[in-house]
Amino acid sequence: MLEKAVQDYYPDDIAVCYGCGKSNDHGYQIKTYWEGDQTVSRFQPESFHTAFPGYVYGGLIASLIDCHATGTAASAKYREEGKTLGTDVLERFVTASLHVDYLAPTPIGTVLELRGRIKESKGRKMVISVTLSANGKETARGEVVALKIPEDFLSKNK
Amino acid sequence: MLEKAVQDYYPDDIAVCYGCGKSNDHGYQIKTYWEGDQTVSRFQPESFHTAFPGYVYGGLIASLIDCHATGTAASAKYREEGKTLGTDVLERFVTASLHVDYLAPTPIGTVLELRGRIKESKGRKMVISVTLSANGKETARGEVVALKIPEDFLSKNK
Repeated sequence: MLEKAVQDYYPDDIAVCYGCGKSNDHGYQIKTYWEGDQTVSRFQPESFHTAFPGYVYGGLIASLIDCHATGTAASAKYREEGKTLGTDVLERFVTASLHVDYLAPTPIGTVLELRGRIKESKGRKMVISVTLSANGKETARGEVVALKIPEDFLSKNK
Repeated sequence: MLEKAVQDYYPDDIAVCYGCGKSNDHGYQIKTYWEGDQTVSRFQPESFHTAFPGYVYGGLIASLIDCHATGTAASAKYREEGKTLGTDVLERFVTASLHVDYLAPTPIGTVLELRGRIKESKGRKMVISVTLSANGKETARGEVVALKIPEDFLSKNK
């Protein structure tokens, strides 16, 4: 994909998230893109991201769902406000709660596809549902309650 | 602590979990110990395990809760059966669902303490609740539904 990912619009100095921060060289660098009314993210786990031999670690799956959902929330809120990505600061969302149902073991050695949908949007709160698939089969499903960060939180913590 | 952790009793050849496998050199090597009727795990995040500058990544918190809970489940079931760790194979549990409430930002640069409690034990299923604290303050709370792995799953996947 040639367009920039949602996470590429986060301001550089706070883009240190281990899951999706472009300024974190150690992290997963998760990237979220819009496709119609859904968001999509694709991720190839490393060979050592195992739970058991042959299967992906559940904590990585939770991490992918978390960052894909907060990226979806931030950009969906931005779009709701009628703005085009890149024209104004993309305000960050944090996770208030994360729920993951592991439906089947997720095979390692293939690209995982995450799809996000907005379930609820009310004020500072967004609820995002995410599915995770491997080889076309859904193996995990998540729901994230995300809250827009208070304006003074990041300035106090830079 | 001098005693062995729960995870040290997992058979070597399948102890490849990125979160808690002693045979995974790339992973977090999470360790769970019993203290009375609770389990405890202590973990010092790396400086790059950030969400925002100064705070721990939520996906790492989810991972710590997940592995501490499945370790708690496996060893609790073992103890329920009247066995002493090390006398028989410790059967593994997998995560059916993971829920995390993020109560407050978790400061980085300090040891995190997780405490696990058995909420429910019924057949192959255990429900484990976990608290996570930093500097004595609870910043996250989790609940994990864990299921004992079918006997033939690991032998088929070695």
